[in-house]
Amino acid sequence: MEQKIQSAVFGATGYSGFELVRLLARHDGAKKPILFGRNGDSAYKDLSEVYPQIAGNGGFPFESFSWQRMKDAGVDVLFLATPHEFSRELVPEAISRGFRVIDLSGAWRLKNSANRAVYKFEDADAAVAEKLNHDAVYGLPELHADEIKKAALLANPGCYSTSIILALAPWVQAGFVDVAHGVICDSKSGVSGAGKAATAKTHFVEVDGDFAAYNVFGHRHTGEILEQLGLDGGSLQFTPHLLPIPRGILSTIYVKLANPMTADELEQSLRSFYAGKPWVRIFGAAKLPQIKFSRNTNYCDIGFSLSPDGTRAVLVSCIDNLLKGAAGQAVQNMNLMFGFDEKAGLQ
Amino acid sequence: MEQKIQSAVFGATGYSGFELVRLLARHDGAKKPILFGRNGDSAYKDLSEVYPQIAGNGGFPFESFSWQRMKDAGVDVLFLATPHEFSRELVPEAISRGFRVIDLSGAWRLKNSANRAVYKFEDADAAVAEKLNHDAVYGLPELHADEIKKAALLANPGCYSTSIILALAPWVQAGFVDVAHGVICDSKSGVSGAGKAATAKTHFVEVDGDFAAYNVFGHRHTGEILEQLGLDGGSLQFTPHLLPIPRGILSTIYVKLANPMTADELEQSLRSFYAGKPWVRIFGAAKLPQIKFSRNTNYCDIGFSLSPDGTRAVLVSCIDNLLKGAAGQAVQNMNLMFGFDEKAGLQ
Amino acid sequence: MEQKIQSAVFGATGYSGFELVRLLARHDGAKKPILFGRNGDSAYKDLSEVYPQIAGNGGFPFESFSWQRMKDAGVDVLFLATPHEFSRELVPEAISRGFRVIDLSGAWRLKNSANRAVYKFEDADAAVAEKLNHDAVYGLPELHADEIKKAALLANPGCYSTSIILALAPWVQAGFVDVAHGVICDSKSGVSGAGKAATAKTHFVEVDGDFAAYNVFGHRHTGEILEQLGLDGGSLQFTPHLLPIPRGILSTIYVKLANPMTADELEQSLRSFYAGKPWVRIFGAAKLPQIKFSRNTNYCDIGFSLSPDGTRAVLVSCIDNLLKGAAGQAVQNMNLMFGFDEKAGLQ
Amino acid sequence: MEQKIQSAVFGATGYSGFELVRLLARHDGAKKPILFGRNGDSAYKDLSEVYPQIAGNGGFPFESFSWQRMKDAGVDVLFLATPHEFSRELVPEAISRGFRVIDLSGAWRLKNSANRAVYKFEDADAAVAEKLNHDAVYGLPELHADEIKKAALLANPGCYSTSIILALAPWVQAGFVDVAHGVICDSKSGVSGAGKAATAKTHFVEVDGDFAAYNVFGHRHTGEILEQLGLDGGSLQFTPHLLPIPRGILSTIYVKLANPMTADELEQSLRSFYAGKPWVRIFGAAKLPQIKFSRNTNYCDIGFSLSPDGTRAVLVSCIDNLLKGAAGQAVQNMNLMFGFDEKAGLQ
Repeated sequence: MEQKIQSAVFGATGYSGFELVRLLARHDGAKKPILFGRNGDSAYKDLSEVYPQIAGNGGFPFESFSWQRMKDAGVDVLFLATPHEFSRELVPEAISRGFRVIDLSGAWRLKNSANRAVYKFEDADAAVAEKLNHDAVYGLPELHADEIKKAALLANPGCYSTSIILALAPWVQAGFVDVAHGVICDSKSGVSGAGKAATAKTHFVEVDGDFAAYNVFGHRHTGEILEQLGLDGGSLQFTPHLLPIPRGILSTIYVKLANPMTADELEQSLRSFYAGKPWVRIFGAAKLPQIKFSRNTNYCDIGFSLSPDGTRAVLVSCIDNLLKGAAGQAVQNMNLMFGFDEKAGLQ
Repeated sequence: MEQKIQSAVFGATGYSGFELVRLLARHDGAKKPILFGRNGDSAYKDLSEVYPQIAGNGGFPFESFSWQRMKDAGVDVLFLATPHEFSRELVPEAISRGFRVIDLSGAWRLKNSANRAVYKFEDADAAVAEKLNHDAVYGLPELHADEIKKAALLANPGCYSTSIILALAPWVQAGFVDVAHGVICDSKSGVSGAGKAATAKTHFVEVDGDFAAYNVFGHRHTGEILEQLGLDGGSLQFTPHLLPIPRGILSTIYVKLANPMTADELEQSLRSFYAGKPWVRIFGAAKLPQIKFSRNTNYCDIGFSLSPDGTRAVLVSCIDNLLKGAAGQAVQNMNLMFGFDEKAGLQ
Repeated sequence: MEQKIQSAVFGATGYSGFELVRLLARHDGAKKPILFGRNGDSAYKDLSEVYPQIAGNGGFPFESFSWQRMKDAGVDVLFLATPHEFSRELVPEAISRGFRVIDLSGAWRLKNSANRAVYKFEDADAAVAEKLNHDAVYGLPELHADEIKKAALLANPGCYSTSIILALAPWVQAGFVDVAHGVICDSKSGVSGAGKAATAKTHFVEVDGDFAAYNVFGHRHTGEILEQLGLDGGSLQFTPHLLPIPRGILSTIYVKLANPMTADELEQSLRSFYAGKPWVRIFGAAKLPQIKFSRNTNYCDIGFSLSPDGTRAVLVSCIDNLLKGAAGQAVQNMNLMFGFDEKAGLQ
Repeated sequence: MEQKIQSAVFGATGYSGFELVRLLARHDGAKKPILFGRNGDSAYKDLSEVYPQIAGNGGFPFESFSWQRMKDAGVDVLFLATPHEFSRELVPEAISRGFRVIDLSGAWRLKNSANRAVYKFEDADAAVAEKLNHDAVYGLPELHADEIKKAALLANPGCYSTSIILALAPWVQAGFVDVAHGVICDSKSGVSGAGKAATAKTHFVEVDGDFAAYNVFGHRHTGEILEQLGLDGGSLQFTPHLLPIPRGILSTIYVKLANPMTADELEQSLRSFYAGKPWVRIFGAAKLPQIKFSRNTNYCDIGFSLSPDGTRAVLVSCIDNLLKGAAGQAVQNMNLMFGFDEKAGLQ
């Protein structure tokens, strides 16, 4: 790996953005990333003012953004760990100027315009945006590795979506699931999933010792999940909950099987589907994934229990929402896009 | 309330037992409870050695148990906050000697012998046990107040069961739920639900920041839920999870409605069902219950969300597992059994 | 207790204010408090919108404040659980109109004007303020019960101050402490002590798993501690820390003894000093106080360890910062001011 | 780094042992470690049964220990993450057989036999043990790098000791501290410091939301601290506390300065002392270390506040107790012993 690539990052002060910088900083194939300030970021000279955690590594200064600076620095890939509005605004020009973009927001994940409505995008040029929507690659490496390798605009998946799609895809694609009966996805996420903004909902005293469901029948990740699994709205129900922990997602997924099956058949199906995929771990029948097993890793852990009569199954999947659910997956995508080993920089 | 009743408690060192003693100690209609030692308890002279929290209230000494002491002290009600094996052994004689018993264990909750199999009871006298099984009253005051008032042996419900039965009973009894489709109960409980035993599963380092499902398709509370709701095994699925918090349960319950309904109709159904019941609070459509709202109270909070097409609903119910899920409900039952106000000693 | 008193509360939406309302609501000698809106409060019609915890108790509506309403309602005592600026502004008129005030802020605690400088008070009428400063009673019931009974303006102590003054007062007053050597107070507080404002410092992800010192050599409670113990600035050092828990304070206090002493002498000194004081518990040598023992109670727990040579001691004191450190102490003061039992409404 | 070294580990199932295995597994200069079972360990075939976290990395099987196996495998260094009794028993033979040992227990840290008394060692051969005590190198790399490079038996420092010695050494050695006045070390540690044993003290419900001092005037790390700083017992007081977090230590250290100094002088002293030491970070006056800054890293962070008159200072130091306080420091020592970069495998 003679030549190192140059990345640039918008949004390094957020939780996903910070994880991204940490990963890029120790990636053997990448130079130290350039950090561009945005809004609040520009109040800081260096990322270590926000996160003293990374002091002692030579500094991570914020720079003023310009396309000229992007060009002069020879940026190979631009990461956006920013709100979707910012991404809808910046990406058209970035792509037209020939920069490859990995966008961690929800801006370009949805193909179906009806699903997109929930975001209320306001695009300067609707035709350009539509073209980008069409060309953008949904960056779930276990499902779309080939398209990802060639992607100009990569839409990094949502955290909940990652945990649900990876768990369901093998059995849904194999026709094992009675989709018409309806699939229930009961997901639980740590607080970093709510972002770094200080609100009544993220105040320690409000969260500690508590637990709550939210956005029932209305979470924005639902569209991604449906599109990627090829399901219609009525056939899948997704309920997110807020866990009093900093990071991690566990999804408990209830499916009725189209025909009775054995645990071995189901486990084998998962293992075959993810053979050769380094960032998915299949758990055998004896043990279910827990949040701590994949915390601080890029793994998606998947396990399940089967009803005694073999007709109903409960899938359990876990990820670290900031890694496999955001920054780690973004680096995994970068690895594919630039010909690195899929595991590079993620261990 | 001229005359105060005398209670006695086995198992005061456990989490439910300790809450029970605290409640009884400030109940205006009850004298200070007599504490009987069992196993580990007898290592202590006073409950304040285990729980310095209650120091400064005149002491809660442990006594040696005997039926004579029970008689001499004029015990009106014996509480068992002990393992179910202990209860199966002690209760037959207690009842035959004419003492009223409120049992917080799972020993006497199940009418259906098939459901009971999971406990592997070994009874000295099977016929006596069978008779007690039959006569025992399932102590959910919102459903069985009349029987409770006359009960000799009261089986205090399980914590998960309480949160699920109270949420589902109104709509199931009204025929609103498409039971044949199957009901999904995804429940989450704080660690005190696992008891006071120090194990790898309750170690702080193992629990903090983690979250896990357990006993999928195999939890002992399933039988209670089915019996109380009049459902058969295939129509309800119950999955418990361990939350990294000390106390509280939230159950997320998925139902398909037999016919499309409005949120108003559903809310009205809940409100009517629990009219006059002081320990159930119905939440309107705008807000769902959270664990902190009912923490340290005897309330069961119930709310729900309805799908836009009115065909599917998600019920959310919360209780404090040590209060409405154990000791608080036990005192609520005692209030009914001895003619106190249902709210006495619980505010 | 024939006649119930009427209280009014400003600042019920804050953590201390909410605890105060809960305590007043179940105090046998008090009517339901009147809640006056201030700033953000006025966005709500009822306190249960902010804290669904108290739903089901008949409602706690916010009213618009006016002196006329105060008079018409026959308010006996006005509680201020508000920032000190608000208190400096409102109290002069309240007192001149003859209302008794219990102020939970730091506005009126300090007699020494040099100590007051840290607050940067801007008073409309300096002479009036100075007079009020002089007349205000520092509301630590264990030290000033007689003055409290007659107080017009009661300055409820700071939370840290309460935990430190109560621990040190007996030995300092007895001359046991080598004050010239210097006393070290290393205190640790839960997050509710930082208030309800959502900031980077109270964000769950920032606090959970963390621990930090702050305001070293500069915390505003230092002045109260010095004044109440009769010490000068050089002789006591106070360092607050933020604990990742919702509530509770533990202070570890290091003293050099003027002469070698035995543990018995020291314990006896504490017990004598607090004889008849219902809200202080002295721990024997075998066990030190922990935060959980006094959590959700109005107790101040005090214990200590003595060096083998009897020359140095470590005092440990614990309180619940929202109760004995704020709302509970305020009610304890109200009890003294209005002739109730000192324990009324606090058990 | 042509040739990789072979390590072996006793005690991999404990928290420090597991961290050690994780570090060794990705150390570029080390082969995968051999794991020897001890007590409970032998109940497992592979470390991933205890810690599913490390599944997917080819397995970490437990082997039966024998000196022959040690020899055949060409073990270069033997790590002991075991109780001190085990170490006192095994180390004499290991050293006599020519194996280099890094011991994470307290077995060989103390030179002064009086300090050693607290451990109650029972040695098979007292003379051999005494010789080993004498030859063992206290493995604090920032103080003893030269001896460490040549060490046969390396005694890895205690976690509390590391945080205190590193903070105090610069100023004590420079004579800035008025030692006769007495130094106060108020330390707070996460629960993993108490080990993996499930006890009443590590139960989640007991720890969560709590905070407590323990072993006041009696903690075993005191001896190490005194010996390394060259102080006598009366001049330093150490009080450990248990924080409700999984990992991390913060020590608040109170010193009286021999002469008034400026913050610049003090900061400069720290910076000079640790110049070229990659695992110590000095914080400027504007910000103090917090546990989260060094969590999951091998850094020791040191900062301080100075009293306005320049006569008293409060040092604050933070480490991750499982890394710089145990496994990370052990690897740092291994790096020195085997000629690796001091940072190798620790980033």
